[in-house]
This record gives sequence, structure tokens and C-alpha cells, in this order.
Amino acid sequence: MVNCEMISFLGEDWTRMTKRIESSLESDISLLDKTNKTILANGGKKLRPLVSLLMARACSGGCVTNESLDYAAAVELLHNATLIHDDVADESMVRRGAPTVYASLGQTASVLIGDFWLVQTMKCILSGGRKDDRIADLFSSTLRSLAEGEMLQLEKTTTADTSEEEYLRIIYSKTASLFETASACAAISVNATEEIVEAAKEYGRNLGLAFQIKDDIMDYESSDISLGKPVGVDLMEKKITLPLLGALETVNEDEKKEIRKKVAEIDSKPENAEEVRQFVFANGGIQCAKNRLRKYVDKAVESLSILPDSKEKEYLTALAGFSADRKI
Amino acid sequence: MVNCEMISFLGEDWTRMTKRIESSLESDISLLDKTNKTILANGGKKLRPLVSLLMARACSGGCVTNESLDYAAAVELLHNATLIHDDVADESMVRRGAPTVYASLGQTASVLIGDFWLVQTMKCILSGGRKDDRIADLFSSTLRSLAEGEMLQLEKTTTADTSEEEYLRIIYSKTASLFETASACAAISVNATEEIVEAAKEYGRNLGLAFQIKDDIMDYESSDISLGKPVGVDLMEKKITLPLLGALETVNEDEKKEIRKKVAEIDSKPENAEEVRQFVFANGGIQCAKNRLRKYVDKAVESLSILPDSKEKEYLTALAGFSADRKI
Repeated sequence: MVNCEMISFLGEDWTRMTKRIESSLESDISLLDKTNKTILANGGKKLRPLVSLLMARACSGGCVTNESLDYAAAVELLHNATLIHDDVADESMVRRGAPTVYASLGQTASVLIGDFWLVQTMKCILSGGRKDDRIADLFSSTLRSLAEGEMLQLEKTTTADTSEEEYLRIIYSKTASLFETASACAAISVNATEEIVEAAKEYGRNLGLAFQIKDDIMDYESSDISLGKPVGVDLMEKKITLPLLGALETVNEDEKKEIRKKVAEIDSKPENAEEVRQFVFANGGIQCAKNRLRKYVDKAVESLSILPDSKEKEYLTALAGFSADRKI
Repeated sequence: MVNCEMISFLGEDWTRMTKRIESSLESDISLLDKTNKTILANGGKKLRPLVSLLMARACSGGCVTNESLDYAAAVELLHNATLIHDDVADESMVRRGAPTVYASLGQTASVLIGDFWLVQTMKCILSGGRKDDRIADLFSSTLRSLAEGEMLQLEKTTTADTSEEEYLRIIYSKTASLFETASACAAISVNATEEIVEAAKEYGRNLGLAFQIKDDIMDYESSDISLGKPVGVDLMEKKITLPLLGALETVNEDEKKEIRKKVAEIDSKPENAEEVRQFVFANGGIQCAKNRLRKYVDKAVESLSILPDSKEKEYLTALAGFSADRKI
């Protein structure tokens, strides 16, 4: 897998970052400690800290700082905190092919454990008396985005009238904002110029948008459970994503209304989901989403042009490609 | 009510602090904005920001800083964040006599809204580029305490073998730690000496311990629903609190074992709860807890002796008394 090679390339930096995550999750409350270790063992792609460390090195000729390691650890902690809470919210039983904390320990523990990861995120950011206000601003607006994005999505599922603009805000908030912060904080951590920090931000944002659009495409495309989650789950939850929005663009107002109505009624008529899915495929929704995805990948790669050539830059370019071509 | 007079005494400082809370909870996501306003309208006692502002003024001859207002707002935001998540965790339907967010909007929204309040807590602490590491340390260890305390309590409910030491750790973590931070940050916000900061910390900790012990006594004593929650809920959840621990101290090992067994089996034998409750009353458990409560109140008042006399100091003394004598 593409990120194994990168992790091995990052070597000691990666190990030190991972150690920070592990030690910040240690606790003498055995139920908490054991659960945290299980979550860590189940892993995940660790894309966000990968972006963060690669960017820190790409901006500094390969020299990360203690701050670089803390921020990379913080983004991974935060990402996992939101997953733990998402699983409570959605009552999800399986994540990454393993039982969720929610499935294993129920509602009470999973809310608290998610809070604990959130708290340790803050601790990572706050530790060592940071002087740079930009870090606090980036993390707090990302944190706010994460909660607001999910709330907007939730609000929209009751009416099934999500517009493309709202869709973009949702995926920025729930995914791209954290990639943006991961990337921008990395640049700040090695004292990059304001211009490079902006480029890093741009890279992270576009990578995140591409990543989420690919997720939304896969939700339509997948016909097996290699994703570790049931197929077509977005539609069953009345979440309107880019493939459907793309397909809706090709039909007239009456047809649009009819399809949106079918989505809105999915709770009582689950058979609607398959109809809507076929509508998406028949009307080029997937291709439309793929075109947009490609656009964000290109933008992400373009924003790297300000950086000197390096192995790190090559990997960041590869990650943008991976976000579009991945199977998981 | 005692705190109405204090709030009116705090006047403009209170209004400005409240405004900070309100504006930090505004959102253009209407579901979120509306829910936040409802939570705010349902109020609560607002004891923590009261302690915070009174302490800031008591340490400074009546002059609060912008930091004082931010920290007071942050403790109230954090307290509410934990209540919102507690209600999801416990599936509670009623809080402060009104439906909980969980009851009104269900699991998904209430997890996210709790996260949002948690995030805004951080924003309040981080805003304005604070330079004092002590603030970050206090808040992050309180945040960690809150999650760990609940986890320890949860772990203990499965075996019903909580010791008094563990009980004290639980109530420190879930309640007293936040009072401690509210009080200590207030002193720091007005540049109090290290000695006064320590005294403020001591006051907050003992007040918080007293407050939680009173809560635990009321859970046994209440025979109406003026609390806004069903009576005897701790015992039904197999939470062993000070009144029961006090009563257990008066009997021999065999009887102890028997009572603990009765608690452990409450899920399948709910009738055990009334038996245990009667055991507590018959064996002086309530009186024992009241004695301990009084000890913490006295300690809290004692720690104020370092401060010059003022109306604020009088109110802080009154709050310690209130924590022991309150009916709600």
C-alpha cells in the first residue's frame, strides 16, 4: 500500500509521532487504557499525520520540529475522536473491519472515550506553551467545522434538499478542514513563509475535498464490503452526495423533484434507494463526480509547485493521486 | 435564590460573560443555533462561572480582566458540554425540568452538539493568544479528569466494589476538578500571587467535593422530583456513593459482602434498591456523608482566609454554605 512505503520513508519521525499518540492515550483507568490500545491497534490509513509530516519535511528540507510531531499526533487523535463519536451517532457496529467502540462497550463508554480523545487532541496542541496564534485558530476553526458540518448534514437529511453549495460546505467541514489544518500547521511548525503556509493550506483543502468525493463515489460504486461498512449507506441515511447531485443536473425540474421525493421517503420505502442508485448510474452521476474529483486532485498537486523538489514532494503528489484512485 | 442576588451584584461583569457564551454558540446552521439557544434558556444554576467571577474580583479588589470573562465562560460551556454528553450516555430524557437534547433530537445530534460546546470551550481558552501555560494545564487536566472520572465510575458499576478512595477520585474528577479550574483560572486571570492561586484552587476543589457529596446525599434523600430527575438514580445505576460507603463502614465483612452483592444484582433484581436504601438510612449513612460534607465546606471557607475582606469573599463563603444546604 502506498502509505506503507511513505511511513517507512519517514522512519524515526513517524515512530516519534506514533509514540506521542500512544503515550497521550495511556491511562490508569484500565477500561479506558485497554480500549484505547484496541482502537490504536485497528489502525486505519493514518493519512492525516502522513500529510502533516511529509509537508513539514517538504517545507524544511527534511527537518521536523517537536511542534511538527505534536500537530501530526493531534490531527490523528482528533480524526479518531470524531470517528468514535460518529459511530455512536450512527449506531455503527463495524469500522475498519472490526467492532466499533460503540458495538463493544455501548453508548456511555463510547461518548466518553471520544471525549477523551478530543481532550488529548487539545493537550497535544496546548503542550509546551505554543506562542503561535495561527495554530490555535486553525485547530479551533477545524473543530468547529467538524461539528457544524455534521449538523448541517443532519439537518439536510430531514428534507433531502441539499444543494451543491451545501454539499461542498459539508465535505469541507467534515473532511477537508482537518486536512487543511494538518497541512498548514505542518508548514507553520517549521517556520515556513506565509506564502508557503497558504500553499500548504490549499494543498490540504483540495486533497481533503478529493478524498471525501472519492468516498462518496465509492459509497455508490462498491459492491462488496472491503470498505468495512455496508454499501450505499449514505443514500439509506438520505445523505445527498455529489454523484446524485451530478445526475440531478442532467434532468428537468419535475424529475429532480421526483427523485428528491424518493430520497426523502427512503425511511418508509427503502426500495427507493435502489431506484435512486440506478438513476445516478444512468445519468452520468458517477462520471460527473469523477471529473470534479480530478479537478481537486489537480489543484492539490498544483499548489505544491511552490515547494522545492524532494522525495517528500513526490509523495505528497502521490497522495493526491491515491486519494482519487484508492480502492479503500 | 442565593445566586440571583450574586448575579445581580456582579452586574456588568456577569452580562459581559454571558454575552461571550451566547456569541460563541451562534451558528448559521439553524438546527444547531436553535438547540443552543434552547439549552441556554433552560439555564441551570451557573455556579461555576459565579465562582469564577467572584474569585477573580475577590483577588483583585473588584477588577476583572478579559481573561476572567473568557475563563468563566469556558467553564460554563465545558460544564454544559459534559451534561449534554452525559444525557446521551445515560439516555436521560429530562434535565432541569425540561427535555434533554437527547430526548428532543436523539443520539446523533446530541453527540455532535456536545462536541460543539466542547469545541467552543477550547476556543474561549485559546482566544487572544494566551501566554500563561498554567491555564492550558488546568483546563487540559480537568478535561482529562472529566472523561477519566466517568470511565472509572462506569468500570466500577460492573462490579459494585467501589472503595472510598475510588469514590473520592471519581467525584474529584467529575465535579471538583472543574470547580478547581474555575477558581484557579480566575485568580490567574487577575495576576494573583502563586499563594493566592493555590488558595483559590483549594477553595474550588473543596467546594466541588462538597457539592458532589450533597448531590449524592440528595439522591438518597429526595422523595419528590424537584431535582428534575428520578429519585435514587445512582443506586439503580449501581453507583456506590458516600452514604452507602458510610453505612457499610458500620457493619462486618459478611454484611458488607451481602450488601455489595445486592447492589451488583440490581439489574436483574430492582427490588434490591429499596433494601439497600433502607440499609443506608438504618446505618447512619446519610449522617456520615453529611459530616464529611461539612468538613469540605469548612475547608473551602478556610482557604478564603488569605483574601482581604470584601462582598465577593462573603459571597464565596455563602456559596460554600449553599453547596451543603441547597434543596436543588
